[in-house]
Amino acid sequence: MVPRHDLTAGRRPEPSEAPTGAPPAGPPAPRGPQDTTTAGEALAGYLNRQAAELLRGLRLHDENAGSAETAAQAAEAVRLLRRSARRISGALHTFRPLLDSAWADRVSAELRWLSGVLAREHAYAARLDRLLAALHRLSSPAGGGDGGPGGGNNEPRTGRPGAGAAKAGALLERQLTLARTRAHSAALRALGSGRFHAVADEVAVLASDAPVQDRAADRPAELALGPLAELTHRRLVEAVESLPHGSQALAHTLTAEEGRHDAAWHQVRHLARLTRYGLEVLVGDPGSDDTTAPLHGALLLAGHQLDRHRDAAEAAAAAAAAGRTPRIAPATAYALGVLHADQRHEVEAARAAFVRLWPTA
Amino acid sequence: MVPRHDLTAGRRPEPSEAPTGAPPAGPPAPRGPQDTTTAGEALAGYLNRQAAELLRGLRLHDENAGSAETAAQAAEAVRLLRRSARRISGALHTFRPLLDSAWADRVSAELRWLSGVLAREHAYAARLDRLLAALHRLSSPAGGGDGGPGGGNNEPRTGRPGAGAAKAGALLERQLTLARTRAHSAALRALGSGRFHAVADEVAVLASDAPVQDRAADRPAELALGPLAELTHRRLVEAVESLPHGSQALAHTLTAEEGRHDAAWHQVRHLARLTRYGLEVLVGDPGSDDTTAPLHGALLLAGHQLDRHRDAAEAAAAAAAAGRTPRIAPATAYALGVLHADQRHEVEAARAAFVRLWPTA
Repeated sequence: MVPRHDLTAGRRPEPSEAPTGAPPAGPPAPRGPQDTTTAGEALAGYLNRQAAELLRGLRLHDENAGSAETAAQAAEAVRLLRRSARRISGALHTFRPLLDSAWADRVSAELRWLSGVLAREHAYAARLDRLLAALHRLSSPAGGGDGGPGGGNNEPRTGRPGAGAAKAGALLERQLTLARTRAHSAALRALGSGRFHAVADEVAVLASDAPVQDRAADRPAELALGPLAELTHRRLVEAVESLPHGSQALAHTLTAEEGRHDAAWHQVRHLARLTRYGLEVLVGDPGSDDTTAPLHGALLLAGHQLDRHRDAAEAAAAAAAAGRTPRIAPATAYALGVLHADQRHEVEAARAAFVRLWPTA
Repeated sequence: MVPRHDLTAGRRPEPSEAPTGAPPAGPPAPRGPQDTTTAGEALAGYLNRQAAELLRGLRLHDENAGSAETAAQAAEAVRLLRRSARRISGALHTFRPLLDSAWADRVSAELRWLSGVLAREHAYAARLDRLLAALHRLSSPAGGGDGGPGGGNNEPRTGRPGAGAAKAGALLERQLTLARTRAHSAALRALGSGRFHAVADEVAVLASDAPVQDRAADRPAELALGPLAELTHRRLVEAVESLPHGSQALAHTLTAEEGRHDAAWHQVRHLARLTRYGLEVLVGDPGSDDTTAPLHGALLLAGHQLDRHRDAAEAAAAAAAAGRTPRIAPATAYALGVLHADQRHEVEAARAAFVRLWPTA
């Protein structure tokens, strides 16, 4: 068991920052004496804890993988693995100048590979759920109770749309289940690979010992880590500011360029996560620290919309791909077209929601 | 030439109404002495003018119909006919208690039939334009100049979507051009029918003489007409208040119930027009009268969104109908599905815009 480090080297509020007023809910987090936590303690402590989590996930996975009875535990283990791999990778990236840079770059990249490989199975399952739920919403009757005066006289009254939706669902289920099965095998292969064992060895070292540079290790955490965390935050702010403006609703949905702005949004999502992990290194529990709670809350809310954006964009692409399946019935293709547009509509809605909630002042 | 009646029996501003400040742009409308216009003068004058317009439209149509060279003039004539038929029908409906009710109901219904028959050709042409423009927006490349970082790696790269859009456009063009041609013939048949000649005879009488009841004719316009115009306005307000709340985006798009709330919105559109025509009877030029200009402006803006709502709902239905054409290619059906969803998205956008601009206070 790795001892829990206290990482509460919070920034002092600047004069321009109004206090948030209400104390954080729940029991107050244990706080060490202010300004005495060193950068070495804070960063190494965070890496220690996340490495221990990753190794715990790995153990859990080894104990539960390969059996249908324990599939849920194995999935939870993979979630733990991904969660800590992302955090270690993020911390190594953000605080790279305080570490052996070449080593940090290498391990960070390997952990990104790992979390990417491990994310796919879950992503395909979630994508299928999302698309089937959307098809259900699009094709289920509305229920008679909400007083609409009828009016659908010009609307489809044949059985075709429903049949198309059912066939589209079956097609998506077939395609995404196959993709999911392949992703599962790829994840298992990855976890058995020499490449994974090499990175697991690095993480095992991290769990007890993180190579923070001597000249940084003894400086106050706030002074040595704060500017680097702030740099990531600034990159996020700039990425948000340079997002392409103006939605044109479903423009270009039928072209190869529909998703040309998606990548800029995915990058914002990545930077929002990096910023959040940077806060976690600075302050053990940024959600209950007066100085970091507002930003942390905004990052969580924004992250929710950015996840929704990513999920909807990928679901739209999956619907489009299914629509290109040879020899499908026109009604199936029609339903997939509606579904595709529906998910691009979700993409736009997520962007609009992000813009509304993101603090630009 | 029918003499132009002065219908400026405007309401006096109530104490709670702030004056709008700036005078109306353009030359001031000629105003008669306040409160001296009788209900008979105002209502009969309005009916006289609109009836003269209708007869002018009919003459223009007779002179220009049947020749390709003068098709634009014939179309303009039909627009004039529809415009005045709607207004006469609306005035007869709103001010029915001041007229021979049975006569007013009959002529109003016949004019509704006429404007309905005459509207269809234009509606099909506009629907085709709308759908082809939407297909163009959905399928045209975005242009390289706006700095998107690429990112469409998961998006369709085959030629299929574009080909589907082109085929969908050709299919819609075929179907809606056929419908338009049939509507054109139906309009010509209607204008040559005994039914039309009967209503035209009634309108010819209206052009010089409107049967306002004796006991109402001599009362001040404001007292006799105002409450009836206000009643229509109140019906509009109630219809807006009872509109189904809460958009669920594209819910039920693939079912027969998608459009079940459309009729309630179309009814609001109808009442907004009736209210506007009622104002025209009360005040010759409601847009330049201080007391009626705010409501008149709101009705025009709302009417724009309600027209957009109606057009998008009918375009969506046309895309859905085209999607049910037997033996179309899956790519065509797919593009029609996207188009259908796009137009239902427009329906939702129009509803949202209406809610934003409608003065609820």
